[in-house]
Amino acid sequence: MASIIEPRVLKGFRDFLPPAEIKRKEIQRILEGTFENFGFVPIDTPALEYRDVLLGKGGGETDKQVYAFQDNGGRDVSLRFDLTVPFARFLAAHRNELYLPFKRYHIAKVWRGENTQKGRYREFTQCDFDIVGPDSASADFEIIFMMYTSMKALGVENFIIHISHRGIFNAFLEHNDLKGANVEILRAVDKIAKIGADEVKKILEPVTGGEMADKILDFIKAETNWQDTLKKLTELVGGENEHTLRMESLFKLATETGISEALYFDPSITRGLDYYTGVVYETFLKDIPRIGSVCSGGRYNNLAGLYTKEELPGVGSSIGLDRLIAALEELDMLSTKESLSRVLILNMDDSLMGYYFSMASKLREKNISTELYLEKKKLKNQFSFAEKKNIPFALICGEDEYKNGTVNIKNLTTRESFNNIGFDEAIKLIQA
Amino acid sequence: MASIIEPRVLKGFRDFLPPAEIKRKEIQRILEGTFENFGFVPIDTPALEYRDVLLGKGGGETDKQVYAFQDNGGRDVSLRFDLTVPFARFLAAHRNELYLPFKRYHIAKVWRGENTQKGRYREFTQCDFDIVGPDSASADFEIIFMMYTSMKALGVENFIIHISHRGIFNAFLEHNDLKGANVEILRAVDKIAKIGADEVKKILEPVTGGEMADKILDFIKAETNWQDTLKKLTELVGGENEHTLRMESLFKLATETGISEALYFDPSITRGLDYYTGVVYETFLKDIPRIGSVCSGGRYNNLAGLYTKEELPGVGSSIGLDRLIAALEELDMLSTKESLSRVLILNMDDSLMGYYFSMASKLREKNISTELYLEKKKLKNQFSFAEKKNIPFALICGEDEYKNGTVNIKNLTTRESFNNIGFDEAIKLIQA
Repeated sequence: MASIIEPRVLKGFRDFLPPAEIKRKEIQRILEGTFENFGFVPIDTPALEYRDVLLGKGGGETDKQVYAFQDNGGRDVSLRFDLTVPFARFLAAHRNELYLPFKRYHIAKVWRGENTQKGRYREFTQCDFDIVGPDSASADFEIIFMMYTSMKALGVENFIIHISHRGIFNAFLEHNDLKGANVEILRAVDKIAKIGADEVKKILEPVTGGEMADKILDFIKAETNWQDTLKKLTELVGGENEHTLRMESLFKLATETGISEALYFDPSITRGLDYYTGVVYETFLKDIPRIGSVCSGGRYNNLAGLYTKEELPGVGSSIGLDRLIAALEELDMLSTKESLSRVLILNMDDSLMGYYFSMASKLREKNISTELYLEKKKLKNQFSFAEKKNIPFALICGEDEYKNGTVNIKNLTTRESFNNIGFDEAIKLIQA
Repeated sequence: MASIIEPRVLKGFRDFLPPAEIKRKEIQRILEGTFENFGFVPIDTPALEYRDVLLGKGGGETDKQVYAFQDNGGRDVSLRFDLTVPFARFLAAHRNELYLPFKRYHIAKVWRGENTQKGRYREFTQCDFDIVGPDSASADFEIIFMMYTSMKALGVENFIIHISHRGIFNAFLEHNDLKGANVEILRAVDKIAKIGADEVKKILEPVTGGEMADKILDFIKAETNWQDTLKKLTELVGGENEHTLRMESLFKLATETGISEALYFDPSITRGLDYYTGVVYETFLKDIPRIGSVCSGGRYNNLAGLYTKEELPGVGSSIGLDRLIAALEELDMLSTKESLSRVLILNMDDSLMGYYFSMASKLREKNISTELYLEKKKLKNQFSFAEKKNIPFALICGEDEYKNGTVNIKNLTTRESFNNIGFDEAIKLIQA
């Protein structure tokens, strides 16, 4: 006989046991339901793509994190590392089959060979949603509104969406002749939540000089409310422009739909070196802000530029499902279920198994998830199975009950028994 | 500016545009609903695993089809090529966390570097469900019953499940001192649907001699009904044994639950060289039998033998989702939807956008999927968008209707208009 292979899993990869996978599916279904309710449609793309298509001709920093290899046909291929690049490629490839405005969502696994020490995974699930076509305040707002509605649908109440605008930030840099130092400034500002204003200033000073560093720190500081922040920024960029007007429109829409309480104009949000050109946002859970943003994104006005000369404006957002689930778990907002069954039909007598299957069908037709115990074992074992799996009801039907056309129901939570009752009454008990 | 990269996709891989992905999700949700109604729970495993864990220490025939490579850490890894091997590994790894009987389903992508010429894909979706623990007729039957119920839930009526038993086949070979020629005989018999009895005989004759070849062909020929086939086979294996009794129990259960019409005892079903030890089955759509089985599986009594010394009996089945969808498409059983939206709120006036968003929320609270047109465009364009996406209703609300607290509804299918009606009435119209 061959020796046993140790059933090990790669570092950074995970098995999902039923309690974890049940949770994931519940959350995914809630999100999909919300997105579809907003008129967003699903797409899917391959896990594996041509390496140069995913990484561009250069490669660069992401390269080392990417799972890339030669396939059996000698092609250079790579596992996708996000859903944004494949979406850009998808848009260019199918431009003629899609009607704009195009609203899509995509929930799928991505892979990155990241350092796993910080509790990061090498395989994780992204959940992206985007609107391609309109460059309008209402498109920006729809994404924010859908983020808001998704959080509510998941039962999260205590969250805040930090919003800013890269166009205003760029206008500020331009207004102060700082455009050349763009990258250094963005990198520094991006760190403010982690290292604080003083440390950011220390990084900025050699680049911009002390006075300008103070000006930048003033710029990225939020005032007490949206209007005041907007007013200050408008002054600092030399007056109204299309970007400041966009932020005004956004606030108007948020107020009119009653969600402005959940939004916070925070000029320090820049999303680092990413490709955003307009509004940007991050979502924090107020009870555990330290885990970082659970839903982030923004507007990028040339989404598919790598693959087509047509300019396709887009606005979108991405939920890191793993981080969100970890957060909801920490907040004790997720139940742990070993089973989805509502009732276990015990095996009292193997010769009644056909009858049990027929009863199970009738229960399932009423959408009552029903499990059958498929072996002849001691009743004690069967009950203990139901309890381990937290199945709330047991249906017991032996030879006598079968002859009488009745069943016994035991509520395993309250320990109440209901003996010799009709099947319809049993259904009502189980449904209640 | 960098040159444009052609947005190409690897051969054998596919993008799923909304109409295709909507269908896939619908089918997946129906299947998940059915499985969960039977008390099956979901699991997930990594797409990428250690190569030796997936392929065993040898490798062999599957090897060439497998996407295998070295990761950045120098580990030999491979993309999963089915869901059975990862499940066996999963069982061994988590044996102490699982309660038997364990009923799980797993729907996920798998990858094989197969020849794509026959319309085969290199990335496709498997849908597996198994019961681990009991070796009983009722466990075998539950899988068959769930296959049956799944087909019905998908709206498929005209299907037949061919069932056989590898234990009876093996007993027949043993009874005739043919155990040594096991592999050649299985390979030959497996071809009968494709090449016919005469050709199979030609392959068998040199191995078994002519008389025995006839005997084998007689053995694998079904009689007019289950009982007669079982009777013949029982005689040909030298009398009743646990396997013939199992087939008798299965037929009893099928009869008692009223599904025996959909089952066909077909001794020519062997599932080739696979690891099955008990019941085996394949499912054919009677209207397009040539596409082959859409749902196949069987019993294997030492599922996780590669990874643990504990014998774990299992019975399960697998739906090839891509093949099933192709079949349902060919049977015109799937609708093509560009959109899931029930109503499009037209943009009559940008200043009313907040009001539109609020109306959309109210519709969505009633689970009416609602899309907003996010740009100020000509009405003609907005209507044409709704029609291209097959959205059945348009909601029109300009300055006047806003002031009156009314809306106009246009049914885009019947072309009827309902003007200046209250919002509650509009909801009823759209829901109807």
